[in-house]
Amino acid sequence: MLKLNCDLGESFGAWSMGQDELVMPLIDQANIACGVHASDPSTLYKTVRLAIQHQVEIGAHPGYPDKEGFGRRAMALREEDVYALVLYQLAALDGVARSQGAEVGYVKPHGALYHAMMQDESTRRGILRAVAAYRSDLPVVMLATAAHQQLRDEAAQHRITLRFEAFADRAYNDNGGLVARGDPHAVHHELAKVLEQARSIATHGSVRTISGNQIKMPADTLCVHGDNQAALHAVKAIRSMLTELAKG
Amino acid sequence: MLKLNCDLGESFGAWSMGQDELVMPLIDQANIACGVHASDPSTLYKTVRLAIQHQVEIGAHPGYPDKEGFGRRAMALREEDVYALVLYQLAALDGVARSQGAEVGYVKPHGALYHAMMQDESTRRGILRAVAAYRSDLPVVMLATAAHQQLRDEAAQHRITLRFEAFADRAYNDNGGLVARGDPHAVHHELAKVLEQARSIATHGSVRTISGNQIKMPADTLCVHGDNQAALHAVKAIRSMLTELAKG
Amino acid sequence: MLKLNCDLGESFGAWSMGQDELVMPLIDQANIACGVHASDPSTLYKTVRLAIQHQVEIGAHPGYPDKEGFGRRAMALREEDVYALVLYQLAALDGVARSQGAEVGYVKPHGALYHAMMQDESTRRGILRAVAAYRSDLPVVMLATAAHQQLRDEAAQHRITLRFEAFADRAYNDNGGLVARGDPHAVHHELAKVLEQARSIATHGSVRTISGNQIKMPADTLCVHGDNQAALHAVKAIRSMLTELAKG
Amino acid sequence: MLKLNCDLGESFGAWSMGQDELVMPLIDQANIACGVHASDPSTLYKTVRLAIQHQVEIGAHPGYPDKEGFGRRAMALREEDVYALVLYQLAALDGVARSQGAEVGYVKPHGALYHAMMQDESTRRGILRAVAAYRSDLPVVMLATAAHQQLRDEAAQHRITLRFEAFADRAYNDNGGLVARGDPHAVHHELAKVLEQARSIATHGSVRTISGNQIKMPADTLCVHGDNQAALHAVKAIRSMLTELAKG
Repeated sequence: MLKLNCDLGESFGAWSMGQDELVMPLIDQANIACGVHASDPSTLYKTVRLAIQHQVEIGAHPGYPDKEGFGRRAMALREEDVYALVLYQLAALDGVARSQGAEVGYVKPHGALYHAMMQDESTRRGILRAVAAYRSDLPVVMLATAAHQQLRDEAAQHRITLRFEAFADRAYNDNGGLVARGDPHAVHHELAKVLEQARSIATHGSVRTISGNQIKMPADTLCVHGDNQAALHAVKAIRSMLTELAKG
Repeated sequence: MLKLNCDLGESFGAWSMGQDELVMPLIDQANIACGVHASDPSTLYKTVRLAIQHQVEIGAHPGYPDKEGFGRRAMALREEDVYALVLYQLAALDGVARSQGAEVGYVKPHGALYHAMMQDESTRRGILRAVAAYRSDLPVVMLATAAHQQLRDEAAQHRITLRFEAFADRAYNDNGGLVARGDPHAVHHELAKVLEQARSIATHGSVRTISGNQIKMPADTLCVHGDNQAALHAVKAIRSMLTELAKG
Repeated sequence: MLKLNCDLGESFGAWSMGQDELVMPLIDQANIACGVHASDPSTLYKTVRLAIQHQVEIGAHPGYPDKEGFGRRAMALREEDVYALVLYQLAALDGVARSQGAEVGYVKPHGALYHAMMQDESTRRGILRAVAAYRSDLPVVMLATAAHQQLRDEAAQHRITLRFEAFADRAYNDNGGLVARGDPHAVHHELAKVLEQARSIATHGSVRTISGNQIKMPADTLCVHGDNQAALHAVKAIRSMLTELAKG
Repeated sequence: MLKLNCDLGESFGAWSMGQDELVMPLIDQANIACGVHASDPSTLYKTVRLAIQHQVEIGAHPGYPDKEGFGRRAMALREEDVYALVLYQLAALDGVARSQGAEVGYVKPHGALYHAMMQDESTRRGILRAVAAYRSDLPVVMLATAAHQQLRDEAAQHRITLRFEAFADRAYNDNGGLVARGDPHAVHHELAKVLEQARSIATHGSVRTISGNQIKMPADTLCVHGDNQAALHAVKAIRSMLTELAKG
């Protein structure tokens, strides 16, 4: 069954971000910031506790060392530094989770590190090597495209399995890529459209592209957001829809 | 047998500190900075590898979140924040160590956090609770004084055992405390005096105080420094002396 | 006439704090974070522009180098480091303001640095020396107490004048100090009480203490907050009341 | 006459870098780190004082907000953020300098920001606009190439003049670019060759390229390094040579 994942634990010190208490009960997988692009030890600890309370799978969400840019700015890191960066963050979150009786279940890089992972082989290798060194049974989450095999093969060389994530609120191109955010049609704003796309991914593993074609888009998990009322409303609706599907 | 411990892995990015390659072969226990008051993921990783190479026990050396002050400035943290801060750093270092086939063997707080641990009960409790939550079989290193029992009792409430560390190059008061650094006689500069004090601690568990009295100073480990040539020379001499004692 | 000052420009990167656009039109003096305990160059620049747009006096609001703790945690800094820290932040904000045709009009330290200024002579001296080195005609804002003369004398030694600030929503002790936040009566929650205290400070330079006595509390400026709806509502009411008084 | 410029003030807290006391007396222009990619308020203040003591021109040396990478890693910043970043750092350094009776004389971006300035128009515009907003009579230092006019025209649109810097210890290509560091001949290691290139730039405004051609390389200043004994030795030799030339 299609899962819902969401970025959480992204507050930093006195600066609050997101609505973690409201979102956590609605999702399956929490991508928890690890104290580098966002979060701090106290925030990380509280977020782990909240995930455990709601029996949500804990995912490591490592990012670039750029709090000021929230890990969203491309940074040129060598493979060895990506390796150490991801290993450190994964270790920190998993260790805190284990101290509370849980553990990390997967790794999903954040922001610009995620984008670099999808585009740059040395970044991808640094990430895969780090996860393999830590615990090779941890899956890494990557962006669902129309063709997954090459990435699966690459990950398999490091004994890593992949999970693919799709978006219910982002428009897709015919080639399986996301429509760039600059495009006015990049994001679906109507709930009906979001729900239709979520349902299509959940039941058929396909999406209708921006040009009207239906393309394959097999996905293990749907990335959702909960940082405003509309987003939270959409997550609730998707959750209900998936629950209905599961019953049916 | 008396061990030698030393702070290592304290470089940060392009800024180098210490002579880790030269010191590591001489010591038993490396207090490795965890990326908060010093170090970064790549430095931490390299330091863990170096410790493994020389079969040196890896100790977590957590500090305050104050890189600019190198964790040496007192900071007013609540117990809950100390708890999360130490837990995070211990988890990060231990996870990286385990990914390389080793593991953390003890915890020794750094700088102002170490001083706060010795003086403030809530800081001490935050540290002990963090270690207990992570792995209660990990000893915590505290400052050797003439009377250890109260600290042992406090730690035992958290199922934590303590290790006590003494100094070969610092003068002691009659009450078992270190002579304050402001005092011109606070630090022993002659190697002979340093060696004599190290030998006295190693063989009799006692030191001669600044006023000439012999007092008990049972210790498990000696804290040494290796950041300059004279310090390195002293470490080598102490190492030789301890090796001779062990043979004898 | 009594002025209203408020801390603004306290966002950091992607993390938003406060309601600067709503508060700025209501106040006389904006205490703008300088990029150390909060803010970043882009946030600082935008806040300076917003203050200029609303013709609000720009105040430097320097804090400790502790973003994670938002400058609210006591830190043990030597006088020389306080001096350099305040000088740097004042220079940065004033230079940005001057590049936009404005300039800094006063200095009000933030959080734990403010508290240290009120309690610790060496911190106070570091601050006063920094402002004097930069521009000795800039007043420094300190906490109004029942007796200001000693502080004025101290500042005068550095050719610095002081401004004193009072609070409309904080209860005062008979000795002129603020009731500690731990006390359930420390903060006035009813708007009527807040307005009454603001009026008393504005018209008589006095407040009624927690025990019912009227004490002198001469003040140049009132510190207000705008980070939630209730606070914003109170600022509007105080602003109207002061405007009425000015007419009357 | 050809000037010598050097990066200084690059220590950070307890981490020391460079040999500022030894280098400062030998150079004309100190590129002083502004507390973002390196330095801190106390280091910046001391470095300003040292420059004043040796009557060395103070240059702002702004960098990316990446202490861990020492500002050497490419970061994707929008023009507006480059603008605010450079403005902030220039303001901070100049304000501290003015508080001590000096002032900033030019701006030379650091590391990856310098490289981006040479390659990316929006970064260059952000930098030029920031300097123009602050004080348009401040020259900006750029890399000398065989053809300067386009950059001069671009800067002139912001009423900024440029200074061009060349290197005595780096090999040049026939097109006027530096030989990439990966190339084994990228750096001149023999002092004779370094001195010959410095003399050629100083007297003829030309260099002999890696392929043996003589090309024009007009430069206002020579970038030198002083972070090790060999580098310091070379700076002394270049200084003597330039002094001789000036006499002659």
